[in-house]
Amino acid sequence: MNSRRNFIKTLGVVSAAATLPINTIANEMANQKMIHQVYFWLHDNANTNEFLTEAVPMLGKCPTVAKFIAGTPADTEKRDVVDHSWQVSCTIFFDSLEDQLAYQKEPLHLEFIDKYSSMWSTVKVYDIAI
Amino acid sequence: MNSRRNFIKTLGVVSAAATLPINTIANEMANQKMIHQVYFWLHDNANTNEFLTEAVPMLGKCPTVAKFIAGTPADTEKRDVVDHSWQVSCTIFFDSLEDQLAYQKEPLHLEFIDKYSSMWSTVKVYDIAI
Repeated sequence: MNSRRNFIKTLGVVSAAATLPINTIANEMANQKMIHQVYFWLHDNANTNEFLTEAVPMLGKCPTVAKFIAGTPADTEKRDVVDHSWQVSCTIFFDSLEDQLAYQKEPLHLEFIDKYSSMWSTVKVYDIAI
Repeated sequence: MNSRRNFIKTLGVVSAAATLPINTIANEMANQKMIHQVYFWLHDNANTNEFLTEAVPMLGKCPTVAKFIAGTPADTEKRDVVDHSWQVSCTIFFDSLEDQLAYQKEPLHLEFIDKYSSMWSTVKVYDIAI
């Protein structure tokens, strides 16, 4: 009886160890709010306005985006630690990691890449759990 | 008479040219909302929690900060364009460029630098006009 109880107890522990990480990942995917911060360096500065007003607004219309803020370098002090060399940024809030993953596959996002990727030379992304 | 009128006209243009940029700068300083986006690379990963919970909250308490969001790298896909190598970020909203300038000189900000700058090896800043 004791050994049966122990077996069941052990089984419970093993089962918890096997399923907990998966549940944790699932919870994080579903509940972890984040900022997807993107900086674009364009081939031609002259395209900045078109990129800002016609291109990136497509990203803001993607259905899983919670909040979208387009930006340009602010006219702050020149300091070694401040990078003013990019042209356009997107600050995109998502309510979960799942929503960011869906955004990566969203047809409107893919259309944006297809239509405008030739305009940028470099893109840098920082994904921020908040 | 004609030459006097032209002189006045010219004076008006010169005066506008001399004062307009100053007014424009003043307006931008007073009205341009922005995000001050900071990424920290720490010498020691083991300090991440202390830096996140004790150090950067000091920045959020600076009086001209409109909104403060501390973050860590989100567990998103590994892609060439995504930098997950930093440890702690601050997303700081200001209602004006003036407010960001005041923040740079704020005693609590200077105390933060004095107390914690030995913990980071690199800091990168992007100032975003929004």
